[in-house]
Amino acid sequence: MSVALELAQSLIRCPSVTPADAGALDVLQQALEARGFDCKRKVFDGNGSDAIDNLYARLGTKGRNFCFAGHTDVVPAGDRDAWTVDPFGGEVQDGRLFGRGAVDMKTGIACFVGGVDAFLAAHPDFDESISFLITGDEEADAFNGTVRLIEWCDQQGEKFDTCLVGEPTNPKYLGEMMKIGRRGSITGWLTIYGAQGHVAYPHLADNPVPRMIKVLDVLNSRKLDQGTDHFQPSNLEVTTVDAGNSATNVVPAKVSAAFNIRFNDLHTGVDLEKWIKDVCAEHAGAHELRVKISGDAFLSTPGKLANLIADAAQKVTGKRPEMSTTGGTSDARFIQKYCEVAEFGLVGQSMHKVDEHAMVEDIENLSKIYSEVLSGYFNHS
Amino acid sequence: MSVALELAQSLIRCPSVTPADAGALDVLQQALEARGFDCKRKVFDGNGSDAIDNLYARLGTKGRNFCFAGHTDVVPAGDRDAWTVDPFGGEVQDGRLFGRGAVDMKTGIACFVGGVDAFLAAHPDFDESISFLITGDEEADAFNGTVRLIEWCDQQGEKFDTCLVGEPTNPKYLGEMMKIGRRGSITGWLTIYGAQGHVAYPHLADNPVPRMIKVLDVLNSRKLDQGTDHFQPSNLEVTTVDAGNSATNVVPAKVSAAFNIRFNDLHTGVDLEKWIKDVCAEHAGAHELRVKISGDAFLSTPGKLANLIADAAQKVTGKRPEMSTTGGTSDARFIQKYCEVAEFGLVGQSMHKVDEHAMVEDIENLSKIYSEVLSGYFNHS
Repeated sequence: MSVALELAQSLIRCPSVTPADAGALDVLQQALEARGFDCKRKVFDGNGSDAIDNLYARLGTKGRNFCFAGHTDVVPAGDRDAWTVDPFGGEVQDGRLFGRGAVDMKTGIACFVGGVDAFLAAHPDFDESISFLITGDEEADAFNGTVRLIEWCDQQGEKFDTCLVGEPTNPKYLGEMMKIGRRGSITGWLTIYGAQGHVAYPHLADNPVPRMIKVLDVLNSRKLDQGTDHFQPSNLEVTTVDAGNSATNVVPAKVSAAFNIRFNDLHTGVDLEKWIKDVCAEHAGAHELRVKISGDAFLSTPGKLANLIADAAQKVTGKRPEMSTTGGTSDARFIQKYCEVAEFGLVGQSMHKVDEHAMVEDIENLSKIYSEVLSGYFNHS
Repeated sequence: MSVALELAQSLIRCPSVTPADAGALDVLQQALEARGFDCKRKVFDGNGSDAIDNLYARLGTKGRNFCFAGHTDVVPAGDRDAWTVDPFGGEVQDGRLFGRGAVDMKTGIACFVGGVDAFLAAHPDFDESISFLITGDEEADAFNGTVRLIEWCDQQGEKFDTCLVGEPTNPKYLGEMMKIGRRGSITGWLTIYGAQGHVAYPHLADNPVPRMIKVLDVLNSRKLDQGTDHFQPSNLEVTTVDAGNSATNVVPAKVSAAFNIRFNDLHTGVDLEKWIKDVCAEHAGAHELRVKISGDAFLSTPGKLANLIADAAQKVTGKRPEMSTTGGTSDARFIQKYCEVAEFGLVGQSMHKVDEHAMVEDIENLSKIYSEVLSGYFNHS
């Protein structure tokens, strides 16, 4: 059994559902210390969120610092009766490793270690630096995880030259897709107020629904952009609208809605927030609006790391991955402020679902790809 | 104590919350039989509603038939602790008669009887007909009440020459307003279906909300009409819209809405139903639509009865009531198919509320007005 598979099993057996760590970081720290990494643990709390344990580990003290980033926390198992295996058993069946985190992304971290082993075996004279930036708060608030750990590293004088995030990026097969950026995300919650009354006496009531319809129509109708070379078009979705009034002869007193925009680098969260506020000011009448910017769009213009990943994936799998910016947010949005970043990991199809699993063959190949990326990075400087 | 006030008290003391009768029709029947009325009781059931007792009473067998129409059922008392009196006590305090039905409309029926007494006392040789069409199902479904009772009367060969409905029609003072028609009412319930999915992958989801916004915008934007001589403009109100989705990163699978149109005689329920269906067919995509026509608009073009009421109210109160078509529906919508109909009753301000009450002075004056209407109707033929 390979190093990566065995370590992935050990990590899966720690039921580290955010914010619980359940020993996962200890397992990883032990593996890294055995390979000569210097490990630092940092618990961050506050921000109205849970206290979270984090790990920063570094092999070497000089040269360029190649960073692997990821998280050991997982989403809940959900309906356990629907699983055909123990979600925290780390079982291997029919060439697949099963368990919560098998894809997202304990196994990715295990492949980092497998890749480092292979790289070091091939380069016994390596004298630069490899680091691990690992959090336990990616699946929940992400307040006390990567964003604070990398800030702390920066304050300690740690510099990162490049960073590979091991999130599952391949939709269906290994070698299909990497992520070189992500769209930004902004969410709005709007409540519009009117005056309740009988539908037969409209002059005595003030129906807030027509104003809500107008606001949502204006928000929905704007074509934000056509997309860019690396980004799909920005997109607004109204996720809910609710008046909750069951009386068909009564005009409701208020109506609420929520909407989310995933936007590319032609926009900023601040600009979109201003636009949303302007639309509401013009059309909503009496209203309350709350807006949360989860992150701006970012793009690591396809460069050294992305090409190294593409070359390595092609060499190992025979397929050259697409450089994509699709999908949800990840901690890469925090890291891109400090250094070049790209994401490449396992096949994400079963992530967050019952019977989450990774192909054992993919685990071995991903370890090889990570080793190739390290070789490419440090050999071709 | 006057006949009308005493009878109103007796009726209020029967807690006849729809569909309960609680003896109310017996009280009325006894009073009418004492005055020589021939009384028929009819229980109607079916239509997916409760079995309801109804009363048709007629004094005289020939000549013109002047009909008084009303209902002995009442809406629930609601929060009894909020009442300062027993809602079914029929108490008189400070010149007011208190109780559920004091305004809507047990006291109106009692004033019919008071008016008949005064009229007969002044016209001992009266040899035409006066009738009472009284239901116990006006406040709820109205399926097994007036609509079936008048149909039954028609089948028995009973003819009505004119009908005065005693619903409370005056907003603030007796003599302010009568109703000579009502707008129609149509309600629609619409659910639009899409496909759930993550907001970051809009191409894999199908958000039903934009289609709902479009449908509601089209429905809302149509100016149905400008009103007519006797009707205010027709009006659509969206009463609710609900997706019920709290996850701001998920596109909802469906969204529902309800809307109601109060329309004047420039429209019919059937025409509006067709319009609603056409709008949904064009803009809603996958959807389910349910439509209920509660009644078409009707107008008793201001004629003999309306003018008699106006003359009588002016003679008794010094004020000439406006001939209005505002407000909610009433059983007059069923009666207008058989004869001229108009509505005039007490001051409605406290109807359906706690401490519902009528002024004792208004009760006496309304009895006089009804008597004057009878005199006018039968003397001036």
